[in-house]
Amino acid sequence: MTEPVRVGLLGIGTVGSGTYRVLERNRAEIARRAGRRIEIAWVCARDRERARGIVGPGVPVVDDAVGAVADPATEIVVEAIGGTGIAKDAVIAAIEHGKHVVTANKALLALHGNEIFAAASARGVMIAFEAAVAGCIPTIKVLREGLVANRIEWIAGIVNGTSNFILSEMRAKGLPFAEVLAEAQRLGYAEADPTFDVEGIDAAHKMSLLAAIGFGIPVQFTRAHVEGITGITDKDVSYAEKLGYRIKLLGIARRTPEGIELRVHPTLIPATRLIANVEGPTNAILIKGDAAGVTLYQGAGAGSEPTASAVIADIVDVTRLMRAEPQERVPHLAFQADALSDIPILPMADVETSYYLRVRVKDQVGVLADLARALADAGISIDSMLQQGAGDDENETDIVILTHQTRERNFDAAIARVVELPSVSGDYTRIRREDLL
Amino acid sequence: MTEPVRVGLLGIGTVGSGTYRVLERNRAEIARRAGRRIEIAWVCARDRERARGIVGPGVPVVDDAVGAVADPATEIVVEAIGGTGIAKDAVIAAIEHGKHVVTANKALLALHGNEIFAAASARGVMIAFEAAVAGCIPTIKVLREGLVANRIEWIAGIVNGTSNFILSEMRAKGLPFAEVLAEAQRLGYAEADPTFDVEGIDAAHKMSLLAAIGFGIPVQFTRAHVEGITGITDKDVSYAEKLGYRIKLLGIARRTPEGIELRVHPTLIPATRLIANVEGPTNAILIKGDAAGVTLYQGAGAGSEPTASAVIADIVDVTRLMRAEPQERVPHLAFQADALSDIPILPMADVETSYYLRVRVKDQVGVLADLARALADAGISIDSMLQQGAGDDENETDIVILTHQTRERNFDAAIARVVELPSVSGDYTRIRREDLL
Repeated sequence: MTEPVRVGLLGIGTVGSGTYRVLERNRAEIARRAGRRIEIAWVCARDRERARGIVGPGVPVVDDAVGAVADPATEIVVEAIGGTGIAKDAVIAAIEHGKHVVTANKALLALHGNEIFAAASARGVMIAFEAAVAGCIPTIKVLREGLVANRIEWIAGIVNGTSNFILSEMRAKGLPFAEVLAEAQRLGYAEADPTFDVEGIDAAHKMSLLAAIGFGIPVQFTRAHVEGITGITDKDVSYAEKLGYRIKLLGIARRTPEGIELRVHPTLIPATRLIANVEGPTNAILIKGDAAGVTLYQGAGAGSEPTASAVIADIVDVTRLMRAEPQERVPHLAFQADALSDIPILPMADVETSYYLRVRVKDQVGVLADLARALADAGISIDSMLQQGAGDDENETDIVILTHQTRERNFDAAIARVVELPSVSGDYTRIRREDLL
Repeated sequence: MTEPVRVGLLGIGTVGSGTYRVLERNRAEIARRAGRRIEIAWVCARDRERARGIVGPGVPVVDDAVGAVADPATEIVVEAIGGTGIAKDAVIAAIEHGKHVVTANKALLALHGNEIFAAASARGVMIAFEAAVAGCIPTIKVLREGLVANRIEWIAGIVNGTSNFILSEMRAKGLPFAEVLAEAQRLGYAEADPTFDVEGIDAAHKMSLLAAIGFGIPVQFTRAHVEGITGITDKDVSYAEKLGYRIKLLGIARRTPEGIELRVHPTLIPATRLIANVEGPTNAILIKGDAAGVTLYQGAGAGSEPTASAVIADIVDVTRLMRAEPQERVPHLAFQADALSDIPILPMADVETSYYLRVRVKDQVGVLADLARALADAGISIDSMLQQGAGDDENETDIVILTHQTRERNFDAAIARVVELPSVSGDYTRIRREDLL
């Protein structure tokens, strides 16, 4: 067996420590596959004391990330710091020093991926980022390599475990959002500041990477439409269920003749679909290719060892190909850098989908006719309807309407008229609906 | 862009024609990714007339497979003939001529894989076989590369679409096996001679490949335990459902301290598991790794274009790595050839699992006590029980027992006693049960 490959580990938190632990535990099994041992050359951590408690005595612990990546003997740098501050400086420095980089940092790549990939290609090094999307599920590999024959039509995924845990619990226990969020925080499924997760930002980071890889376009996080789950009530969860649907925070990237849809929002999915039944803090991705049809990938989307599984897969891939010619490697964004497309991201107003609309109305004659008229005038036809006399005020009632497909701008126009109707109390919820066929 | 890679296509049936069609249709998209065009250099078919009707006028059509693979300009041979006759001769000949081989032929690799992989490695060529297992789902890639960090604990899969279609229909419509099989044959989901599919042989071919890759052992199809679904009655399907289970033809490969379990048989799976809800002619694979936990992969397991999707993914992989050094390629069986393990396949009698047991008994006092005694004497404890007075004969009844885990040899011993009980009519069914956690 040849010399071990020398890997530097930036950060020894959840991802870093998992990577260290799995590499130690499965050292022999991994070497039997890779044909080469993987050696942690050093660990870089702000809190060196804490790091010393995790790594073995033979492993140097340093605290200067940008300095550490300059080590001439290091061949691969694993960035497990997170965020876009030091992590970015360290990754850029690593590239400048000719190191290959493995990262789990979706925020970094969603915001600075184009710059980082360009710098890496210019320097002839690889940036591997399987762990940045959907934890242990080899989504990047599947999309870049496994489905390479396909014209990708769409990608739809539950890519934020925290939100999926919250929505699953809301349905299972009939509890409101705030209560379940507090439970998720107690259980460690949600952070103290849950904004990135529950507002859809984390999901949009990941979807902007998947869209780039799926369609051969630059990473365009800032053009994504992003809505979270904070406005979803237990009432909506229950109405959706009565209509045969589940509400999931779904990331969608879809190719249309006019442009690429790139959107994250709560979505009604028919309860009969497998992905509608993915519960708890897990992830699942559907990919529709013209040849393969729809395939589903499901597993742990976060966590120390699941993420480590993806990080180490990247380390082994990079190890195999570090001496290879550039054309022997898979391009960062699946497509050759000179073959990226400038097909635009579609503004949300131009997106076609169908809707769940719940409006609170006065329980009086003619309300439904007014509502139906407002929708019909905007060219929107109704698929099905549910009227529910629930609530504190017996003079009010909820009307839930599932529409057929329409453009978002039409639906917005209809809503503007609906809220002006004298019989409508003004309180409404709209949730997009997807068939995923 | 460099010269196109020249691919020879052996066979232009379902898989071959799909490969040809998808390569034509997605020519530009694939080249944008691969960085190189893929050109079908020739097609080999027994019926040249028919082949001419499928391929373009510029593509030579020949009919001598072994002769065709000698073409000096051909770099990759796609074997889409099937079976172990001409296909084997052609693959061996292709290797001898230094061609890389892409094949969808699970029977060939299950029976002759060790010989073929050894010959390929000696000659420095790649054998790629993503399409041999689970159609378009990139299972081989996921297991060999995506989960490379993991010690694989088990693999469990619905890897035969025909059987899954039949079992799904039996449950949905309450119909007996024979009737649904006839329907499947009408719909083209089952062949005129369905033996390979419904007797579990095809599934066992695939599982023996997955076991090899998952555990780093040689391909050992002949040691697999193989049972099909022909003995499953609509009654069992219905009882299983009442107990909260679905019956699936499951392939299982599991690592135990004493050896590797390698078995294909009908299996009760809790109805709450996602994989229990995979319906129709699709495939789904669960993989449990020590770091990743359980991940699920689902999609079309057969069909012209889904299989082509996998074939072309292999062509692109091989194209990328054809000039690479051997150590830059992923080993055929995931593990380095000199690092394969000789851990044995466990005889079925030594396998531990739990059971569904249905026995037909005389409806008389003491029957249940006798049954429970026979099981207890073999050290088998009962998990739950269902007694059903159904059937034509009102003096007989079905008793269904779910046992806790035991060794198969214990269960066999118990069954031998059960059938001798005076109150038992002798008609019984046993189906293994797995939790897949």
